Amino acid sequence: MMNNYSIAVAGATGYAGRELLRLLARHPGATVAAGLDSHAAPAAAAGAEFVFLATPPEVSRTWVAALRQTARPPRVIDLSPAFRDDPAAVYGWPEKHRAAIRNAALVANPGCYATAANTALWPLVQAGAIAPAEIVCDAKSGASGAGRGLRQDLHFCELEANCKAYHVYEHRHAPEIAAQSGIELASFAFTPHLLPTTRGLLATHYVRPAAGADLAAVYAAAYGKEPFVRLRGGALPELNDVNFTNYCDLGWKVRADGRQAVIVSCLDNLVKGAAGQAVQNFNLMAGWPEATALA
Amino acid sequence: MMNNYSIAVAGATGYAGRELLRLLARHPGATVAAGLDSHAAPAAAAGAEFVFLATPPEVSRTWVAALRQTARPPRVIDLSPAFRDDPAAVYGWPEKHRAAIRNAALVANPGCYATAANTALWPLVQAGAIAPAEIVCDAKSGASGAGRGLRQDLHFCELEANCKAYHVYEHRHAPEIAAQSGIELASFAFTPHLLPTTRGLLATHYVRPAAGADLAAVYAAAYGKEPFVRLRGGALPELNDVNFTNYCDLGWKVRADGRQAVIVSCLDNLVKGAAGQAVQNFNLMAGWPEATALA
Amino acid sequence: MMNNYSIAVAGATGYAGRELLRLLARHPGATVAAGLDSHAAPAAAAGAEFVFLATPPEVSRTWVAALRQTARPPRVIDLSPAFRDDPAAVYGWPEKHRAAIRNAALVANPGCYATAANTALWPLVQAGAIAPAEIVCDAKSGASGAGRGLRQDLHFCELEANCKAYHVYEHRHAPEIAAQSGIELASFAFTPHLLPTTRGLLATHYVRPAAGADLAAVYAAAYGKEPFVRLRGGALPELNDVNFTNYCDLGWKVRADGRQAVIVSCLDNLVKGAAGQAVQNFNLMAGWPEATALA
Amino acid sequence: MMNNYSIAVAGATGYAGRELLRLLARHPGATVAAGLDSHAAPAAAAGAEFVFLATPPEVSRTWVAALRQTARPPRVIDLSPAFRDDPAAVYGWPEKHRAAIRNAALVANPGCYATAANTALWPLVQAGAIAPAEIVCDAKSGASGAGRGLRQDLHFCELEANCKAYHVYEHRHAPEIAAQSGIELASFAFTPHLLPTTRGLLATHYVRPAAGADLAAVYAAAYGKEPFVRLRGGALPELNDVNFTNYCDLGWKVRADGRQAVIVSCLDNLVKGAAGQAVQNFNLMAGWPEATALA
Repeated sequence: MMNNYSIAVAGATGYAGRELLRLLARHPGATVAAGLDSHAAPAAAAGAEFVFLATPPEVSRTWVAALRQTARPPRVIDLSPAFRDDPAAVYGWPEKHRAAIRNAALVANPGCYATAANTALWPLVQAGAIAPAEIVCDAKSGASGAGRGLRQDLHFCELEANCKAYHVYEHRHAPEIAAQSGIELASFAFTPHLLPTTRGLLATHYVRPAAGADLAAVYAAAYGKEPFVRLRGGALPELNDVNFTNYCDLGWKVRADGRQAVIVSCLDNLVKGAAGQAVQNFNLMAGWPEATALA
Repeated sequence: MMNNYSIAVAGATGYAGRELLRLLARHPGATVAAGLDSHAAPAAAAGAEFVFLATPPEVSRTWVAALRQTARPPRVIDLSPAFRDDPAAVYGWPEKHRAAIRNAALVANPGCYATAANTALWPLVQAGAIAPAEIVCDAKSGASGAGRGLRQDLHFCELEANCKAYHVYEHRHAPEIAAQSGIELASFAFTPHLLPTTRGLLATHYVRPAAGADLAAVYAAAYGKEPFVRLRGGALPELNDVNFTNYCDLGWKVRADGRQAVIVSCLDNLVKGAAGQAVQNFNLMAGWPEATALA
Repeated sequence: MMNNYSIAVAGATGYAGRELLRLLARHPGATVAAGLDSHAAPAAAAGAEFVFLATPPEVSRTWVAALRQTARPPRVIDLSPAFRDDPAAVYGWPEKHRAAIRNAALVANPGCYATAANTALWPLVQAGAIAPAEIVCDAKSGASGAGRGLRQDLHFCELEANCKAYHVYEHRHAPEIAAQSGIELASFAFTPHLLPTTRGLLATHYVRPAAGADLAAVYAAAYGKEPFVRLRGGALPELNDVNFTNYCDLGWKVRADGRQAVIVSCLDNLVKGAAGQAVQNFNLMAGWPEATALA
Repeated sequence: MMNNYSIAVAGATGYAGRELLRLLARHPGATVAAGLDSHAAPAAAAGAEFVFLATPPEVSRTWVAALRQTARPPRVIDLSPAFRDDPAAVYGWPEKHRAAIRNAALVANPGCYATAANTALWPLVQAGAIAPAEIVCDAKSGASGAGRGLRQDLHFCELEANCKAYHVYEHRHAPEIAAQSGIELASFAFTPHLLPTTRGLLATHYVRPAAGADLAAVYAAAYGKEPFVRLRGGALPELNDVNFTNYCDLGWKVRADGRQAVIVSCLDNLVKGAAGQAVQNFNLMAGWPEATALA
């Protein structure tokens, strides 16, 4: 028997927060008791059984600390980077940590870049299918990943028809990727680019396959039963395949000499890259079928 | 013999200011001695023979007052609304006020909405070609018309794929249109809309032609020799015809019963709707051929 | 007890057809047995209890004729204009024809322009709230309304950053609007424009209110209980309010002198303007709650 | 004394051809005698002193063969790939082949991808500044690079808000890049992506610097006097910096360990990537200042 849970969402006015409300509105096991902005006090979530934090990391830290003091602490899914490397939290990437997520008190929901990159890289690293060499992740993301706050470079006239790289060699998410996929940060080049779109993230990876590695077999073994990873082989995925869905699509091509592969992963940064993955985690934590409200 | 003039541009970091710099860079008769932001003091323009003000109206008023006190006041072209209804200034719409502009000390450059609407309406009113009835101007503009300042509704993610009407029955430019075209504000509906584009303004007008009025003949008489108005008859113009040019294109269709006409005017809000028209005015004031730097 | 029906969709590769498949995939009362292209033979739908036709009008006519000859003719929802003025069909606009739709054998699903315009105009006409005068509907639509077929003006580079009016005084949907709303075609100006967006339709109407007419009261009486019309009064709706939903939002402003009103209606042309309304009709025909698969 | 030349443009209705006409209209040394489509016979260019071919490669080959037979063969600038590896033509990249271009009878104008990549890579290879390792060029281009022909994936609704990689390991321009820059095709990964923009091309390169290599010094030596290459160092360029100009902008960052560098080059694919570079070549061939009509 599946329960209906009382939910609070903090940061409900941001892009990830609004997407959460949109998804939870369809969920038969979730009643959003409170949609709060980022300035609300944690007390406003009193009585909620689950709290989603779509808030800046410093706000998330304050909330988590406060909620732990309450008589009956709610279970928390935090969409910020605050707890992604904190052993007190479970990293909320179901494809790798499904079992631990089910019982977690605090889930650190992954970033959009990290989900795209890890989906491409982790199984290969796991299987020893990558030879030692530089790994490149050239990622392109829609603007909603940067949030709703006002910034000159997010003014419509500055971004329309534009494209740019940013945070080269300094993006905060590279360590998150390296840690989860088990690659050396020292030989991992991660370059995010801003696209003139609202949604969608496409990451193009360049790796050296290990001798004899069979990428298709590795991915099939890793994701063959996953509800939200679609393997497309040489039919490389594009943003329109995944936007407004919780899928992460994966395509790849190996160079004729076998010494390089291009791997493209693709997801909606607000869904599988944020709110959808959070709902997927909620489903696991709450005992609901994993795809509830996400199909 | 044509002179080269020393120019100062205030407000050079805004969209209209940057467009001015782009156009003046090509002008053989203009040397931009100073590109200033909106906070610069008028003294920074000392020595300039012409000053362009691409500044908010209150800044323009301060500058004009200060420049008048100088020993050798420069001639001023103001792109703000500050002086558009001020008899001390000449309204800088060459198609109507060319002679007066040549000798003006202060030119009030028209707004983008006003230029589009007046180009469509004024010759008809002049010629008695419109019968008494409501006049509708349903206008659609790119976002650069709203300026470079940060606003939530100009965030890329808010405007991309969006469209909205705004300032219905309260837009500050409706009186400017009514005054220049000679129509009754009371029966003039002006509705601006925001388009998900950076540039371009398309205005769709609905008028009742007077009995026997010949719109094509009226427009040919008014604009046949104009360098920057193109008459397209039933081949209605679109933004791509005019963007990055100083043209205002005009098309029209009369309903079979003769009792209504749709007139579409179209221009680049940053060029013919702002900086290009300012350069056109400069050319007239400076004795250069009217199309210099605008072809 | 609510049944699950076997469904065929013809024209499933077009934009409306794909949207239908997306919506029906979530519907607990619909099993899509066949997703067919526009060239499929009607026999391919054999056994279906409901057939959706997202096909050109001539294909729809062929299918309807063929399906009528079968032993157990399915009920048909046609998204093309083929049957919109045919008395053998029920015009599938639930807000006006809900009762008749429930029992219809053939539903003619309205066009996107017609739904937007009729939602704004019909209650006013019904209530005698519009005085005799020209009625203007200046409509702006995303490109998916023009279908997936290749056309030079729908090439990405031709439409991006562009906007244009088209089919002035000749659009095929003006009579559909006039017929449903009960207005005179002779004094109704309908001007469609193409927006540089994929989805969304915003229609700006200009009418003369009858003396003493209370638009808010008229709309509240007409739509107060409607699940998919949202009344927003002076907070004019925009595309982002309705895209990816089945809502038609309505806002309005009356000029201070009471002699003119601007009414803005807004919907997603692929949802409330096509596939969503078709599912709403299916729900009525099948006895499912009207919002099933549409929330 | 500089001459005015009679010009014919074949392929004048395509995107590169139209851009050529736009640029040549401003050129004091060029009179476009004939703007022809791709189906015109070479005889239509009779009398022209220069012929620009903005045509498919097979058309260019036919034209070049035919023009060589004429009594006074015109000098030809071909924008297609037909002659880019043909020793009978000079490769029209002024930064490398300026001297040879001046006297060329036939110039093979480079592709947009090749110009962006070669600008980044060639000086480094020349100077021995790249250590042996895989070189990655992850390139993102606006849709006008794919031409004006109708294709499903260039339909507005398919490309808006989309992004995709294409022709991985099979793009025809990789050999052109390898040949001009002097890199091994076997260890060069070139991945083009389609952006939802009309113009602009941004290429992100990943290379291993040779021990002690000083990229800034190498680029300064190579391009310090170039009129159309701008060195921006760590301020990485973006599309809006170069669109509608003939500049190729270059920025770079070296990883802290010195073992990898990211180099971003950026240009307008229709200007420096096609028509602007063709005019630059014309200026060299005709003895006009190199920036004529390009500033």
